[in-house]
Amino acid sequence: MGVGFVSAAAGSAGVSLRPSTCAKSSLFGSNLVHRQGIRAVRSSVCMTATAESTTSKSAAVEDLFIPEDQVASRREEADSLYKIHITEVDHQWVHVLSEGWASPVKGFMREDEYVQVLHFNSIRQEDGTVTNMSVPIVLAINDDDKAEIEKTGKVALRSPSGDVIAIMRNCEIFWHNKEERAARSFGVTDGRHPYIDEIYSGGDWLVGGDLEVFDRIRYEDGLDDYRLTPAELKAEFEKRGADTVFVFQLRNPIHNGHALLMTSCREHLLEMGYKNPILLVHQIGGKVKADDIPLKERIMQNQAVLEEGVLDPKTTIVGIFPSPMLYGGPTEVQWHAKARMNAGCEYYIVGRDPAGMKHPNGERDLYDAWHGKKVLGTAPGLEKLNILPFRVAAYDKTIGRMAFFDPSRADDFMFISGTKMRGYASRGETPPDGFMAPAAWKILVDYYSNVRSYDI
Amino acid sequence: MGVGFVSAAAGSAGVSLRPSTCAKSSLFGSNLVHRQGIRAVRSSVCMTATAESTTSKSAAVEDLFIPEDQVASRREEADSLYKIHITEVDHQWVHVLSEGWASPVKGFMREDEYVQVLHFNSIRQEDGTVTNMSVPIVLAINDDDKAEIEKTGKVALRSPSGDVIAIMRNCEIFWHNKEERAARSFGVTDGRHPYIDEIYSGGDWLVGGDLEVFDRIRYEDGLDDYRLTPAELKAEFEKRGADTVFVFQLRNPIHNGHALLMTSCREHLLEMGYKNPILLVHQIGGKVKADDIPLKERIMQNQAVLEEGVLDPKTTIVGIFPSPMLYGGPTEVQWHAKARMNAGCEYYIVGRDPAGMKHPNGERDLYDAWHGKKVLGTAPGLEKLNILPFRVAAYDKTIGRMAFFDPSRADDFMFISGTKMRGYASRGETPPDGFMAPAAWKILVDYYSNVRSYDI
Repeated sequence: MGVGFVSAAAGSAGVSLRPSTCAKSSLFGSNLVHRQGIRAVRSSVCMTATAESTTSKSAAVEDLFIPEDQVASRREEADSLYKIHITEVDHQWVHVLSEGWASPVKGFMREDEYVQVLHFNSIRQEDGTVTNMSVPIVLAINDDDKAEIEKTGKVALRSPSGDVIAIMRNCEIFWHNKEERAARSFGVTDGRHPYIDEIYSGGDWLVGGDLEVFDRIRYEDGLDDYRLTPAELKAEFEKRGADTVFVFQLRNPIHNGHALLMTSCREHLLEMGYKNPILLVHQIGGKVKADDIPLKERIMQNQAVLEEGVLDPKTTIVGIFPSPMLYGGPTEVQWHAKARMNAGCEYYIVGRDPAGMKHPNGERDLYDAWHGKKVLGTAPGLEKLNILPFRVAAYDKTIGRMAFFDPSRADDFMFISGTKMRGYASRGETPPDGFMAPAAWKILVDYYSNVRSYDI
Repeated sequence: MGVGFVSAAAGSAGVSLRPSTCAKSSLFGSNLVHRQGIRAVRSSVCMTATAESTTSKSAAVEDLFIPEDQVASRREEADSLYKIHITEVDHQWVHVLSEGWASPVKGFMREDEYVQVLHFNSIRQEDGTVTNMSVPIVLAINDDDKAEIEKTGKVALRSPSGDVIAIMRNCEIFWHNKEERAARSFGVTDGRHPYIDEIYSGGDWLVGGDLEVFDRIRYEDGLDDYRLTPAELKAEFEKRGADTVFVFQLRNPIHNGHALLMTSCREHLLEMGYKNPILLVHQIGGKVKADDIPLKERIMQNQAVLEEGVLDPKTTIVGIFPSPMLYGGPTEVQWHAKARMNAGCEYYIVGRDPAGMKHPNGERDLYDAWHGKKVLGTAPGLEKLNILPFRVAAYDKTIGRMAFFDPSRADDFMFISGTKMRGYASRGETPPDGFMAPAAWKILVDYYSNVRSYDI
């Protein structure tokens, strides 16, 4: 296990282990006076929206695991129920739901939740508070499934590998208007978009209900130890004595521009008065599109960056966020932020075109590059989220390393896009000195050398 | 002028008259104790969402008319500015904005507002409160316009008939992503949808800014007296001694099923303890699709319904809402409700498939019939809106008149859809006795007899 990574407090050894009880108390509660003291300083360097609603500190994050003493009877119940095979992406959503990343959502969404998510990117709770929830977490089924589930209002879920992993009860079934779901979530309806393709290939109905999950989701891919639950992350932050946590969402390798940014954010937080800000480098763990770098290589690359000391292992945690990638731009960035708030993160780094991709027609970027940042500043239920603005880093030819772009001497800089980076790596070329830690670069080159006829 | 209609307090006589000063004080303020006393009763018969935010009573509705003493200098300024010709629909939006229906929106939207509308159906104000705003009110321009407006940050607007009607200043220009706008607003991107067609035919840029309007918008079509501003409506409600106001949004003729519903809602309100509920029958005044009945016939038909005593002229006001029709279903119904809250309405009647239409592919209804009602119950910024559920009325053959549908004796009822109604009228046939007031029916028959080769 590499430096900077943290051993899961429980459940790290095998498939059948169960997570430890959630630490629901506030990680930062004891430090409140100190934090209030620096609030005024904070507002000068980052956007802090006003208002009520849930916060990372007050939100009680509930997991959906079946209590130990009820597992046997639930297994018996599941044996008697109609069972559906769920897809790889559905399975990743069960993972997400089970650990409380989407709390207070308690299962695949019913229609009332689904409609609010589509229209408002948020859900109004019974007590009137508003929770951010920008992406539908729904389970598509076909006509036969619908007929069977309607008999009992319950269903058991089989993972792609065939294990019965969960029960959903008090089910509600409603029409899966795939075109509307795509349009309202992605701003396009083009089936060549990878997640819209996933939607269009699903059944004509959606089933929502209360989800009860038997065991912690494990993949046996050598990376399970990086899949810390929100409760485990909070415990680790506390163990490290964090007085705040900032998070960097990734679905790409880390280059030195990213590292510069993370280091700079840390310096900001220190200047604001924090004594021990902890950084969570959080890789998307679920399904990504074919030309993204696979999870294993991304994690190895992230570890190499820590081992080479580009980021400080003492104050950095590398982890995996179990969500599938939606490529939903400004809609998805809210989900990325909200889920990390549930894990105790207080600062979210956002930059140009988060969760973006090319338009499926190949002609332009699908989303406006700055809408993601804009929506984070005004999103319902994210009022207490602190946004750390992403500064643009580029390769400064005059000093031979990554630096913050200075438009007054633009010609001194070279931009190395993800596409350009993949091009270098796939051709086995070396990027400019100082672009990426050498050991980290080697991982990418090795990956591409093993990919035959890879489409850059 | 027919019974039940109310003379506009000011500005009803001609094009150049200016609206009276807004009555910004609360219409219902003096009655607060009484209203609180009946709140508990109310909750049993209608949905009342919880929470904060703006209400019809507290919202200060601001118009955007240039103060009288500044008109001359502004005219001079406008003469010197670059001018753009706006479309019929843009002109209707200037009308809407000028009178405060969309307050606190102060002009065509800038990008910050636009993005929030698309994603959240609401706008966060500087003080942190959230205002419902579900439809983008934006002005599309072309490349040449953009280049000219960027020189000064200002623009003058010419109506379709060529008059300079407004100035917009502190302009911001941003990209008009038409596909995304259609997708997020309508859940489809099909250009055969009438409002999406309008979007697709617009320019590639949007310009937002602070709008200043010279004169009240008039159409000289014999219907201007029905176009009461929010301030005039509030004044009329007060004059009639209303202790609450309920509104029925229409883009169709009134049949006796509608009338039954409105009468029944009134009875509900009386049972709840109100002494003098006033009904606003509010016809969409802006552009409608080709097969909808034109505004003039709809208003004449509404007047005939009042004159025949189907609705009580003493407690009913027929008016025109200047907005274009978007056919935006659950997105648009929020706009319909929010605008009427700005005019002092407290109860909104909502039923099956509000603002709906067929999918442009002709195969099904575009929107889920009940999503409109669902979103009104949870929409941000509409927390204080009271929703009166729309009961289904049908023709009861056993009694020969419209009645509330009783599913236990479904065979006794006949449903007369809008299509069926238009079919009867276009063929000059008489519908079943008791379907519609005879004088009102005659107006429809006369209309269709004058429409050649009308596509039913």
